[in-house]
Amino acid sequence: MQFIAINAVNKAQTLEITLNRPEVRNAMSLSMVRELRQALAHAESTAGSAHATRVVVLRGAGGHFCAGGDLKDMAAAHQRAAQAEGGADPIAEVNAEFGHLCAAFAATPLAVVAVLEGTVMGGGLGLACVADVTIATETARFRLPETSLGVVPAQIAPFLVERLGYSQAKRLAVTGGRLDAAQALAIGLVHQQVPTTDVDSAVQAVLADILACAPEALAATKTLMAKARWNTPAALIDEAAAVFSRAVQGPEGQEGTSAFLQKRKPTWVPA
Amino acid sequence: MQFIAINAVNKAQTLEITLNRPEVRNAMSLSMVRELRQALAHAESTAGSAHATRVVVLRGAGGHFCAGGDLKDMAAAHQRAAQAEGGADPIAEVNAEFGHLCAAFAATPLAVVAVLEGTVMGGGLGLACVADVTIATETARFRLPETSLGVVPAQIAPFLVERLGYSQAKRLAVTGGRLDAAQALAIGLVHQQVPTTDVDSAVQAVLADILACAPEALAATKTLMAKARWNTPAALIDEAAAVFSRAVQGPEGQEGTSAFLQKRKPTWVPA
Amino acid sequence: MQFIAINAVNKAQTLEITLNRPEVRNAMSLSMVRELRQALAHAESTAGSAHATRVVVLRGAGGHFCAGGDLKDMAAAHQRAAQAEGGADPIAEVNAEFGHLCAAFAATPLAVVAVLEGTVMGGGLGLACVADVTIATETARFRLPETSLGVVPAQIAPFLVERLGYSQAKRLAVTGGRLDAAQALAIGLVHQQVPTTDVDSAVQAVLADILACAPEALAATKTLMAKARWNTPAALIDEAAAVFSRAVQGPEGQEGTSAFLQKRKPTWVPA
Repeated sequence: MQFIAINAVNKAQTLEITLNRPEVRNAMSLSMVRELRQALAHAESTAGSAHATRVVVLRGAGGHFCAGGDLKDMAAAHQRAAQAEGGADPIAEVNAEFGHLCAAFAATPLAVVAVLEGTVMGGGLGLACVADVTIATETARFRLPETSLGVVPAQIAPFLVERLGYSQAKRLAVTGGRLDAAQALAIGLVHQQVPTTDVDSAVQAVLADILACAPEALAATKTLMAKARWNTPAALIDEAAAVFSRAVQGPEGQEGTSAFLQKRKPTWVPA
Repeated sequence: MQFIAINAVNKAQTLEITLNRPEVRNAMSLSMVRELRQALAHAESTAGSAHATRVVVLRGAGGHFCAGGDLKDMAAAHQRAAQAEGGADPIAEVNAEFGHLCAAFAATPLAVVAVLEGTVMGGGLGLACVADVTIATETARFRLPETSLGVVPAQIAPFLVERLGYSQAKRLAVTGGRLDAAQALAIGLVHQQVPTTDVDSAVQAVLADILACAPEALAATKTLMAKARWNTPAALIDEAAAVFSRAVQGPEGQEGTSAFLQKRKPTWVPA
Repeated sequence: MQFIAINAVNKAQTLEITLNRPEVRNAMSLSMVRELRQALAHAESTAGSAHATRVVVLRGAGGHFCAGGDLKDMAAAHQRAAQAEGGADPIAEVNAEFGHLCAAFAATPLAVVAVLEGTVMGGGLGLACVADVTIATETARFRLPETSLGVVPAQIAPFLVERLGYSQAKRLAVTGGRLDAAQALAIGLVHQQVPTTDVDSAVQAVLADILACAPEALAATKTLMAKARWNTPAALIDEAAAVFSRAVQGPEGQEGTSAFLQKRKPTWVPA
C-alpha cells in the first residue's frame, strides 16, 4: 500500500488504517480509495481464521483526518470526460468509486472506529459517517465545502442522512457544514470528545469494549440493525428469533455460557 | 398475576405495572412476558368503557427496572431444543414471545411511561425502548450484555433503532451499551432525569400532561406517527385530513369545543 | 398579500415572509395558508433569473411566530360540513390545504430558515418543522394543544416525525408538546438559540453561509437527501455519481473552479 499505512495490533484483532498523505491533509486520491477498499476486503476475508480482524480503526496521518477528494483525480477525469465516447462518464465513475468505498465500510460485519482530528472535510466527513464509533479531539473541524465550489456532496449526502438523521443532515447541507468538535458532539456526529493527549487511551477503552463482544454476535447485531432501518420491529420478530437461536446454539453461545458458568473470560476476549 | 403487580390509579385511568421479581432484579421469565402481554391486552380492552385505562406506567420492584431475560427459561428451551423434532425451534419460540411483547407495547394506542431505576439491561433495555416517555433516576445503569455472552440482542436491536435512530443504536450494539442516566439522557433514550426522591412527582406531572389529552385523539396521533416512520408527509395528507375531520366531528372534538367555549375542563381531564 | 408581509433583500436573493396577523399571534387562516403557498411558488418560479430567490426566511409579526390554525375557518368549515352533500368533507379539505402548504415548503429546492419567537403552537409548530434551519430566541414557547381540545395534530404529526425522529415526536404528541427554547434546542427542533437582541445578526450569519453555496448545487443536495430518507446509500451511488458529474460540468461547477483558481469569490456570493 502506498497511500495508506496498515498496522495490525491486539494479536491482529485490530487493524489500524492510517490515511497517509499528510502533505495534502490526507486527501483521498482514487488510488487511496482503492487501497482502502482492498484493505477492508482483506480484513473481512480473515473472518474465522486464527488471526481474524475484528475491528478497523480509521485515522489520518499528521494531525488531520481527511480533507476530502483529491482535486487532481477530478481534473484528470474532467479531461477524460472531454474526450469520452457516448455513454462513458469518467467523472461519475471516479465519484462512484468513493460511494462504493463508503458503502463497503457501512456494510462491513467488522466494527469500525474513526479517530477524528484536524480537518474532516467533504469526502472525509462522509467517511467519518460510516464508522460505528467516532472519537474526536478538540482539534477536529468539520466542513462540507462542495456547494461553495459549485458542486454537490453527492456520495456524502446519503451517509450524512444515515448518520445524523434527515433533519440535521439537511441543515448541514444548506449551511456548508461547519462544525467544531463540541458542535459535532452535540448532534451525535461525534460520540466522544477527548483531549489530543488522551486520544490513544480513549481508543484503547473503546477497543476493549468492542473486543469483549463475540465477533459473529456483533456482526449479526449490526445486520439486524441495518434491516431495522427499513423494516418495523414487528416484521423482524421471526428473523430475530432465528438469529438468536442460532447464536445460542453456535460455538460463540456455547463458549459464552461455559465461560460464564466457569467464571472466566470467553476466548474472544484478548488476554 | 404472579410475576407482575398491577395497580389501577387515577380512577383506573392509569395502570401501574410493576415487574415484581426483585430477587432477580426483575428478570423477565416467559411467565412474566405472558403476564405483561395479558395485562396490556386487558387494559386495551377497556377502551370506551367508564373505567378505561389510558396510560400504562411500567416500573420494576426493589430499585431495579429489569435485568433482561431469565436464563432459566433459556436453559429449559435449550434442553427442549436438544430433543426437538424437525422444524421445531424452542429457543426461537421463547425469544419471539419477547419480541411480540415489545411489539404489542410499541403498537398500543395507550400512552406508555417507563420509570427506569437501577439495572436496565438486555431485554429490560428493549422494553424501555417501547415507552412513549421514559423517566430515569440517577441510579439507572444501562447495558447490552448479550454479545459479551456470545449471543445476540436480537429482538432488542430493532427497538433500539426505532427509539435511538440507527446510528446511536449501532454504536451501543458495537460497544456493549454501557450508559449511565446522564449519558442515556444525552442520546434521548431517557427523556427526563430526576433524583430518586422526586421520581413520583415527576411521574405525576407526566401523567397530568397525558391525561389532559383526549384518549382517542392521542391514539389517532400515535397511529399517524407510526405511519410517518415509513411514509412521506405528502403521502399522508389525505389520510391525516380525514383523521382530523373525524376527530373534530366526533364526541371528543365536540366536548373539547364546548369545554373551551364554556371555560371549563373537558370531561377526560381527571378532577 | 393581505395576511403576510413580503420583503426581498440581498438583491432579492432572500425573501422574508412575515406572518402578519399579530392581533391573533399570527394564527393561520385559510387565506394566509394560500398566500404562503403562492409566495413560495412565486419565489421558486424565479429560479435561473437574474433576481432569483435563493432563501426564504419565515417569521412572525409582533414577537410571536404562529399560534396555529385559525379557529374561525374551522368553525365555518364545520358549518359547511353540516350542510355538505355526499362525499364532500369541508373540514378535511381545509385541513389538507395546510398539509399541502407544509409539504410544499418541505420539498422546495430553496433554503428555508425559520425565526421562532414567542408562541410556536399547533400548525405553527408544524410549519417550523419544515425549515432547514431554525433559530429561536429565549422567548420561544412550543405547544401541541390539539389533543387537549379533543382533536388531532394530524398534518403536523408526519412533519414532527420527519424533523425530530419518531421517538421524540411521539413523546411530544403524548405529553402535549410543551417545550421552551432550551428544551427545543436539546432535541434538535431548534438549531440555534440566541437572545432577542442578537436574532437579526444570527439570521444574517446563517444567510451568509447559505448564500455561499451555489443554488443549484444546494437544491441537488437537498433532493438527494430527501431520497436518502427512503433509500440506502448503496442504492443511491449511481444516481449520486450522475448528479455529481452534471454539477462539475455545469455552469456552477465551472464558475466554482474558475473562482477557486483565480482566488476570487464565485459569482453567486453576494458582494
